[in-house]
Amino acid sequence: MSRFAIGIDLGGTQVRAALVDEHGKIHQRLEERTDAEAGPDRVLGQIGGLTERLRSACDSSAVVGLGVSAPGPLDTELGIALDIPTLRGFSNYPLREELQTRLRLPVSLENDGIAAAIGEWQFGAGLGLRNLVYVTVSTGIGGGVIADGRILRGRKGMAGHVGHMSIVPDGLVCSCGGKGCFEAYASGTAFTKRARARIAECEETSLAHIGDVLDSRSVFAAAESGDRLANDLVDEEADILGRGFTSLIHIFSPEIVIMGGGLSQQFDRLQAGIQAHVERCAMPAFRDVGVVSAALGQNSGLVGAAALAFLPRRSAAES
Amino acid sequence: MSRFAIGIDLGGTQVRAALVDEHGKIHQRLEERTDAEAGPDRVLGQIGGLTERLRSACDSSAVVGLGVSAPGPLDTELGIALDIPTLRGFSNYPLREELQTRLRLPVSLENDGIAAAIGEWQFGAGLGLRNLVYVTVSTGIGGGVIADGRILRGRKGMAGHVGHMSIVPDGLVCSCGGKGCFEAYASGTAFTKRARARIAECEETSLAHIGDVLDSRSVFAAAESGDRLANDLVDEEADILGRGFTSLIHIFSPEIVIMGGGLSQQFDRLQAGIQAHVERCAMPAFRDVGVVSAALGQNSGLVGAAALAFLPRRSAAES
Repeated sequence: MSRFAIGIDLGGTQVRAALVDEHGKIHQRLEERTDAEAGPDRVLGQIGGLTERLRSACDSSAVVGLGVSAPGPLDTELGIALDIPTLRGFSNYPLREELQTRLRLPVSLENDGIAAAIGEWQFGAGLGLRNLVYVTVSTGIGGGVIADGRILRGRKGMAGHVGHMSIVPDGLVCSCGGKGCFEAYASGTAFTKRARARIAECEETSLAHIGDVLDSRSVFAAAESGDRLANDLVDEEADILGRGFTSLIHIFSPEIVIMGGGLSQQFDRLQAGIQAHVERCAMPAFRDVGVVSAALGQNSGLVGAAALAFLPRRSAAES
Repeated sequence: MSRFAIGIDLGGTQVRAALVDEHGKIHQRLEERTDAEAGPDRVLGQIGGLTERLRSACDSSAVVGLGVSAPGPLDTELGIALDIPTLRGFSNYPLREELQTRLRLPVSLENDGIAAAIGEWQFGAGLGLRNLVYVTVSTGIGGGVIADGRILRGRKGMAGHVGHMSIVPDGLVCSCGGKGCFEAYASGTAFTKRARARIAECEETSLAHIGDVLDSRSVFAAAESGDRLANDLVDEEADILGRGFTSLIHIFSPEIVIMGGGLSQQFDRLQAGIQAHVERCAMPAFRDVGVVSAALGQNSGLVGAAALAFLPRRSAAES
């Protein structure tokens, strides 16, 4: 009999749920807008509702467990949401226990960057590899690492916050409150912000007419059409990403770096610039490390969360 | 019967050797100047000579193996020195195999930062912990990581090159050829270089009279005596170290960061500044991570290398 797991990707905007088999295949996928202001009781109700709908879509006894990916930091050893800035009330909240009580299923909890890394490792661009760094480049920047064939978790399961390595001394203020973080320069949000500032200074660019609806997609589209400023902005973004990835390559010695998140939809345009930076700036022994895009696209975290239910459960000592 | 291992710390200046027991205690310690220009045959002769002297100091059948720490990057999966810039001829050199053949002992090879991390984890400041980052701050900056109770090695065993994370865009040229690396700003060499430049600009400092013999120790001594420039330099160094360590805390989520290397002799003066940076700039969930100095001082790598001989040997699959 086939076994299934339910993956939940709990975000500040959307809560997604999927029924996933042991091969990482999504059999059904649901999503709804997160009621982010309503507090944990309502949000857990949303997760419960989605879970029940997926369970009723298959033989519910075939569902071995639920894996939840959420923005952190989460203490996944204790199963606690320490503080989720985008979800009201999730402060020192015992997320795993509450879900287990409500849903009567084994629940695994993972910081979202790590969950996505697991998805890509088990079923995506990192299949069969022993060492990889996954970096999501989206509103913010997060990450997760597979090292020596194992999931890197660190104290409280909080490893992989690669968006908060400092890349500019006393630099731009980051969402974390710090200054000069990788996220503050290379995230999709940072990219769009930089684009707006440059457009205001530039006399000749097709982007000048776009106004408030400008987003990263419009910049890439203008670059494709030959707009000079847009191409400069994209090249600069690739270079900043390449610089951050090169640091991570020196730190982790992965076989590949996998880029996911919204901005990875533009990976084809970014790849050459990113890879050029790695080849130019990494130490010789690290120059052959490739940067690739996530194979599961926006589903890395969802599938990775589900995969947790199939992996051997970790004990406190193995956290 | 007591079992012993021999640890070798092969550096560009000194080659050190020690007879170490299973509790990390050094029973005998030897060192000599590395004949760095003479090529591998001579250097392996030096290691062989030191090994024989230590073996004859105990029941040689009690020696279970030899662990070697060397500057990298080394491919420790294959046992090859890829390129040791400070030792002539160690380029794609099969160091492990050559030593095994000559010495008829099982030989383990480890990149020096990782070896030192193992020493501190097994017998030093990280005893009993599951997650730690070790950073050596000396001529250069290296590192090694214990994560989830295991040694982090990465592809080819080359993880932990934390000195080569980029902290300044297009910054100072680093020994690796890159620009803006942590090493280029925070190493002992960088500290002394910055001191020289500031002394040349400053009218009132007791350091102006020291001239060419200025080293990091003289700056710390002047700071102790109340010299303002020296104190500014030391505070700045602590801040740069704190910034790099904060990045590593976000990336690895360790329980502690252990600082070793020559500059850690001044740890008492640096600690407050480093810890203040962590508390100010780390995300709330990471602010309680402590920074401590290496308990084994200059012997972390030597004892860590010896410890390799006692640890379960890694197979290719476990690399």
